[in-house]
Amino acid sequence: MTDAGAGGISAEQTAREDELVSRVVASFDGAPDERLKQLMQSLTRHLHAFVREVRLTEGEWNQGISFLTESGHITDERRQEFILLSDVLGVSMQTIAVNNEAYKNATEATVFGPFFAENAPRIELGGDIAGGAPGQPCWVEGTVADTDGRPLAGARIEVWEADEAGFYDVQYSDDRVAARAHLFSDENGDYSFWALTPTPYPIPDDGPVGALLAAVGRSPMRASHLHFKVSSPGKRTLVTHIFVRGDELLARDSVFGVKESLVRDFELQPPGTPGPDGRNLGDQSWSRTRFDIVLPSVADLNGHN
Amino acid sequence: MTDAGAGGISAEQTAREDELVSRVVASFDGAPDERLKQLMQSLTRHLHAFVREVRLTEGEWNQGISFLTESGHITDERRQEFILLSDVLGVSMQTIAVNNEAYKNATEATVFGPFFAENAPRIELGGDIAGGAPGQPCWVEGTVADTDGRPLAGARIEVWEADEAGFYDVQYSDDRVAARAHLFSDENGDYSFWALTPTPYPIPDDGPVGALLAAVGRSPMRASHLHFKVSSPGKRTLVTHIFVRGDELLARDSVFGVKESLVRDFELQPPGTPGPDGRNLGDQSWSRTRFDIVLPSVADLNGHN
Repeated sequence: MTDAGAGGISAEQTAREDELVSRVVASFDGAPDERLKQLMQSLTRHLHAFVREVRLTEGEWNQGISFLTESGHITDERRQEFILLSDVLGVSMQTIAVNNEAYKNATEATVFGPFFAENAPRIELGGDIAGGAPGQPCWVEGTVADTDGRPLAGARIEVWEADEAGFYDVQYSDDRVAARAHLFSDENGDYSFWALTPTPYPIPDDGPVGALLAAVGRSPMRASHLHFKVSSPGKRTLVTHIFVRGDELLARDSVFGVKESLVRDFELQPPGTPGPDGRNLGDQSWSRTRFDIVLPSVADLNGHN
Repeated sequence: MTDAGAGGISAEQTAREDELVSRVVASFDGAPDERLKQLMQSLTRHLHAFVREVRLTEGEWNQGISFLTESGHITDERRQEFILLSDVLGVSMQTIAVNNEAYKNATEATVFGPFFAENAPRIELGGDIAGGAPGQPCWVEGTVADTDGRPLAGARIEVWEADEAGFYDVQYSDDRVAARAHLFSDENGDYSFWALTPTPYPIPDDGPVGALLAAVGRSPMRASHLHFKVSSPGKRTLVTHIFVRGDELLARDSVFGVKESLVRDFELQPPGTPGPDGRNLGDQSWSRTRFDIVLPSVADLNGHN
C-alpha cells in the first residue's frame, strides 16, 4: 500500500474513491433520456466531491438523512420545507439566475416565492391592490419596454405582497383576497397602482430549515419587497421583486433574492400630501416609488445563446 | 453588457452567478460551529456548481422538489427512501470509503444497509445462524487478525443476511429472529458458522427511487451477499459484506457495495458430502467459503492520518 500523499489521503485511497465515482457515473450510461443522464451524472460527481472534500463522517451523514426525513414530514399542502431549504442555500436563486440570463438592459429576475396566486383581481391603472390589507399606502409607477426602449402596451403586470404584519392573504385564516392584483400597461407602456409600503417578515422557521439557520447564526428574515410578474407576447416573462433602499435586511435577505438593480427609493410623503392621482390620504403618511421594467424578446435570446 | 463568451455564458452572467455563490458562502461565515460552517459552505459550492453546470431549468428544479417531497412522504419507521437515494447515488458507499481509509492489508468496508438488528442471538463457534430461515446451507470460516498478522482472540462477529426468498427476518410479518447471530473468534482468531448461501434481492423499488432507477434503465437488484460487523478492542470496527464470485449482479449492484477484494468463492458441495464439522446434510447440497478478516489498530490509523 502507498503512503499518505498530500492532504493525508493515500494514493490507494484516492484510487478507491475515484473508482467509485466512475462506477456510479457509468451506471447512468444506459439512460434512454440524454438530459436525465446528464443531470444524474453531474449530480453524482458534485455530491461525491462534497463527501470527499469534507470527509463526511457517518454521524454527519446520519444527521443529513434525519434532516431530509424531518423536512419531508413537515411538508404538506401548505408548507414546503424542501423549497425553503433550496431557498436558504441560494439554490432557488441560482436556478432563477441560470434561467434568466443577463441580456442587455433586461430587468433582473429574483425568486418567485410560494405566495403567488392565480386569478388575483384585475384593477384599472391607478387602482389599489390592498383590498383592505393593513399597511402604509404606497404609489408605484413605471413603464414596461423592450430592450430597445420601445414601450410595451398591454403588458400583464401581476403584483403581490405581505401586509404590514408580514402576512400574505393566503396565510389569513379566512379566504379574503388582499394585497394582490393584476393590471395592464397603457398604450405608452405606463402603469401605476396603489399598494402597501413593503415590510420585512420571516420565512417559516419552526422546522428543520429554521433550526439550521439558528445553528449557523443566520436570520430567517426576508428584506421588504413587492412581487412582480410581468408578461408580454414574444417577451421573456419576468418574475422579480423590488426592494426598499435603506432596509437593513438588504445585505442579509434569508433567500438571497436581493439584486442591487432591484433596490428602489421609496420616498416618504408626509401626512397631508395629496396622492399623484389627487387621492386625499387624510392624515396618513404614504410612500412612492418608480420601477421601469425591461423585457427581452425571446427571439433575441434564442439568437444570443 | 458583454457578449456571450465560451460556452455561451456572458461575462456579465458569469459574474452574477459567481457573486451569488460568494454571497451564500459568506452567509455561513458567522456560524459558531466551525465544522458546520465548513459543511454548509462546501455543500453550497457543490450544489451551485451542479445547477450552473447543467443549467438546471425551473421545471427540473420543480421535479427535484417533488422527488424529495414524495421521498419524504413514503418514509416512515420501516421505510427510508432518503437512505435508498443516498445508496443508489453511491453517496452511502463513498461515505463508507471516506471513513474507512485504505490502510495496509485491512479488509475493505462496504455499506451497512438498513437490516442490522441489535441483540441478535449468540451462537457458539460452528453454530448455525439460520434459525429456520429457508436456503441452502453454507459453511463460513476464517481468521480475524491485525495488520501484522497477529490473531485477534475474542473478536465480536455479527453476521446477517436475507433468506433464499430475498427477505430479512425484520421483513417477515411476525417477530421471528432468523439468519442473524453473533459469535466470538477463538484464541487463535478463528471463527466458523453455518449460514445460508447468499441470494440476490431488490431494494424497495415501489417509491420515487425505484421510479428513478427505472427511468435511467438501472436494476434495483443487490448482488448476493452476507453481512459482517466485526469489532475488537482498540481496532477499527469493520462493517462489510462478502459477495459470491460468479454472481452476474456483481458488476451492477444497485448500491455500489461490491469491492473485488470482498468477492469470495462459494464452493458448491454435492449432496451427501458431510460438513467440515461432521454435520450430516442428508441429500442437501451446500456451499463453503472462507473470509479472513484484518482489522487495523485505531492507534496506527491516528498516527497514519
